[in-house]
Amino acid sequence: MGRPTMNDVARRAGVSLKTVSRVVNGEATVDPALAARVRAAVAALGYRPNLGASMLRRNDRRTRTIGLLLDDAGDPFSALLHRAVEDEAHPRGVHVLSGSLDDDPDRELELATAFARRHADGLILAPAAPDQGYLARELQPGTPVVFVNRPATGYRADTVLAANRSGAAAATRHLIGHGHRRIAFLGATPRFATARSRRQGYRDAMREAGLPTCEAAVPEARGPAATAALLALAEPPTALFAAEHRLTVGALRALRREGLHRRIALVGFDDLPLADLLEPALTVVAEDPAAMGRAAARALFERIEGRAGEPREITIATTLIPRGSGELAP
Amino acid sequence: MGRPTMNDVARRAGVSLKTVSRVVNGEATVDPALAARVRAAVAALGYRPNLGASMLRRNDRRTRTIGLLLDDAGDPFSALLHRAVEDEAHPRGVHVLSGSLDDDPDRELELATAFARRHADGLILAPAAPDQGYLARELQPGTPVVFVNRPATGYRADTVLAANRSGAAAATRHLIGHGHRRIAFLGATPRFATARSRRQGYRDAMREAGLPTCEAAVPEARGPAATAALLALAEPPTALFAAEHRLTVGALRALRREGLHRRIALVGFDDLPLADLLEPALTVVAEDPAAMGRAAARALFERIEGRAGEPREITIATTLIPRGSGELAP
Repeated sequence: MGRPTMNDVARRAGVSLKTVSRVVNGEATVDPALAARVRAAVAALGYRPNLGASMLRRNDRRTRTIGLLLDDAGDPFSALLHRAVEDEAHPRGVHVLSGSLDDDPDRELELATAFARRHADGLILAPAAPDQGYLARELQPGTPVVFVNRPATGYRADTVLAANRSGAAAATRHLIGHGHRRIAFLGATPRFATARSRRQGYRDAMREAGLPTCEAAVPEARGPAATAALLALAEPPTALFAAEHRLTVGALRALRREGLHRRIALVGFDDLPLADLLEPALTVVAEDPAAMGRAAARALFERIEGRAGEPREITIATTLIPRGSGELAP
Repeated sequence: MGRPTMNDVARRAGVSLKTVSRVVNGEATVDPALAARVRAAVAALGYRPNLGASMLRRNDRRTRTIGLLLDDAGDPFSALLHRAVEDEAHPRGVHVLSGSLDDDPDRELELATAFARRHADGLILAPAAPDQGYLARELQPGTPVVFVNRPATGYRADTVLAANRSGAAAATRHLIGHGHRRIAFLGATPRFATARSRRQGYRDAMREAGLPTCEAAVPEARGPAATAALLALAEPPTALFAAEHRLTVGALRALRREGLHRRIALVGFDDLPLADLLEPALTVVAEDPAAMGRAAARALFERIEGRAGEPREITIATTLIPRGSGELAP
């Protein structure tokens, strides 16, 4: 039995979540009989609002908005992360202002600054710019930030990352375990720390097995061409590790075009919708964007509530899902 | 050559979009030399800010936020629609507050009311509740609303819908054209007008061909079970039309489990990622969520700018994409 939630109160009182929220926030517009039922349920369950006494102060200076800056609101990974942040914010009566950065440093600076001027209570940011030092200048003093998906430079704050290096090593070891010796790495350009960590994980696993590395680091759109180039080598790889989901899709297309999708093994980083319905079904190291969003939002709300102490780094585990493509023999 | 954009001004002046935005919005913090370059580029290109003179009035009563309430921020369809709305809002200096409704009428009322209390300049809403009459009570007078994806009841406003009925009829006619006579309809429960329109399109096409209908209307999660039940009929269908993307995935899984995915034809409503990499590749009637988001945002900003006149209904075309699964012979 965890700590009782606002949902538990709503269920016990037989009222909507909204009604509970209004009563807890001291709004005067609730029918007194309903309010009494809510208060009885709160007492019976020992429910305490997540933000403690501050939820009851209606005149605090919070705007009850948080800013969420991700790579692309239209991308499935960002969308799942966004939804998880919303699910943490909603029961706290907090709304989410969001923006897409498209890997554009100017856009990060513009939107982070704009959200700071709107007095967002906090900011969750997937860094696109090479340096986040500007935050010290632009944020209202005391406004917490949590970085997600990529580490920041020049500004210290709680950071939520996937286990990029160990996940990539696990993918590579999986291919080695299935007998492969010539395993190529297909990764994004090393401009971002995430891409560098995944490459490092691949190198870790190849080095510990005493195998030579073979790497292509390309823009995400160049997956098919880079795969074709790897397959055209004098001694082509018998297996590919694609370290980013758009590159995985590119590799899938190139392998299919060459008629090699049942002969060259493939493991992708990040899961894809319908991956289990492909033939062979796609083996992946799955990230958990919902867990990343939840962890980032919880860390942010703890800081908004006043949690002090050193910035923390929170690592969200990845999961190897063997489905067929990663188990093809050399 | 279209009308010049803020991007054109930034390129010509050799400055960031943010600098252009600051100059256009009359902010005093811009270096005077840069500001002069921006003004020169504005004059040379004949650039006019999208919102006209109101962009220059810093003390108008707008909050420069809009509310966006969709079914589920984590769903790929909603995510693409969201991104398109953001892309219309961003160059206007407007930010997007968003929320997920999960088909929950209480949540629609709660969030629409909350965004109204935050004085959002306008609201884009995919209705989940059976009636939107509450908006007349809750919205600030003059706050425009645009409905998207589903029509509203009890409140009149601009509405952007996919061509659900004609798209469903086109999918059904496509299967008839490939020789099928026993074509089953797998649709969502008819609680929402969208589901009813798609069913009507299926019925239109079957009636005009003089064919009997065979329908399963089920919750979205019940696609596999409903497909299995259809395949177990004494005279099973030779083709399926799945009218919703989660049902299409369910049908794909059921057909594969029965080993019938190369024998029973399938057309889905809504495209799916990787649909072209399945075997057979999946034939769909594709919606255009980005076009729906753009149209909804443009309609909203026109109303925010003061456009008068009767509410309009804007229909976004669907596209039949034949890829293999819909062209299997009976």
